[in-house]
Amino acid sequence: MKILEDRIKSDGIVTDHDILKVDSFINHQIDSVLYDQMADEFIKIFKDKKITKVLTIETSGIAIAYAVAHKLNLPFVFAKKTESINLHGDVFSSKIVSYTHFREYDVIVSKKFLQAGDHVLILDDFLANGSALRGLLSICAQAEATVEGIGILIEKTFQRGGRELREKGYQIESLAKIKSISENKIEFN
Amino acid sequence: MKILEDRIKSDGIVTDHDILKVDSFINHQIDSVLYDQMADEFIKIFKDKKITKVLTIETSGIAIAYAVAHKLNLPFVFAKKTESINLHGDVFSSKIVSYTHFREYDVIVSKKFLQAGDHVLILDDFLANGSALRGLLSICAQAEATVEGIGILIEKTFQRGGRELREKGYQIESLAKIKSISENKIEFN
Repeated sequence: MKILEDRIKSDGIVTDHDILKVDSFINHQIDSVLYDQMADEFIKIFKDKKITKVLTIETSGIAIAYAVAHKLNLPFVFAKKTESINLHGDVFSSKIVSYTHFREYDVIVSKKFLQAGDHVLILDDFLANGSALRGLLSICAQAEATVEGIGILIEKTFQRGGRELREKGYQIESLAKIKSISENKIEFN
Repeated sequence: MKILEDRIKSDGIVTDHDILKVDSFINHQIDSVLYDQMADEFIKIFKDKKITKVLTIETSGIAIAYAVAHKLNLPFVFAKKTESINLHGDVFSSKIVSYTHFREYDVIVSKKFLQAGDHVLILDDFLANGSALRGLLSICAQAEATVEGIGILIEKTFQRGGRELREKGYQIESLAKIKSISENKIEFN
């Protein structure tokens, strides 16, 4: 999606460790006009899918999940990250590793809000190693819900997450695919 | 707002400790149709204010902030909660206490995204003791931004937060005001 790539080029900040920061329009301040356009793009991409629920993970997936769910008149669920060990029996849960924060989390979704028979569109802001996404997919599998597709704002295709999950047959659509990040230079696929 | 009060009555769950859970439409699963209506209500209430930025706090303020900011074609900023002590000099910060999670957090907003000259609409899901809101107000004061108003989905008026902040002159508009919660019974103002 050209407007997103252009925005990453103009406003993304590459730090010392080749990390891309998009704080000014995605991760801290959110550009609602851009989000509306990105939501339209996902609607177009997944228009032939019969979706009953949108699923994301807190925190930074919530805005795009709302933007898309709102256009589809659907509810959305955000999986919660918790470090607590005592999980109730009324949740689906999966362990994920955050490489950004060097932590392991339990990701949970209440059994009330995801069921067999649900057709799920998973949305998130970033896809890199795929840990968060594998957690959400595990939760969908536990619920016996059907994953209709996965929409990502920014994928780092030089990390393995997207490739591995596409090989398993998931339809993953990323609005911007970054091939490489180096000092002052971002290259897209 | 009658549709919100009705929804709280029908789908809110009061637990043993007189805590109201609204997980099925606000805090875990989000009803995007209801949110759109609530956003319209805030737009109507604050229509005479010249707003340049919407401010909320992660996690559960993000959806209503997006819904309103999108209708105003404005960016919004979500303050981040962090337990880390080492804050950079490039953020405004404030300490808040979460009585739900029995923790103290630093709430931070990058200085890049809130400035003197900004006219801010603060939005959040809950107002009870007011700790999170005081944190956001402190951050606006540090930025020398003008707070035009505060919009809350559900206020517990039997706790002191709203009363104290209204006495200080802030315009706080809550879509549902709960006077009391007891076993199986929620009363509104």
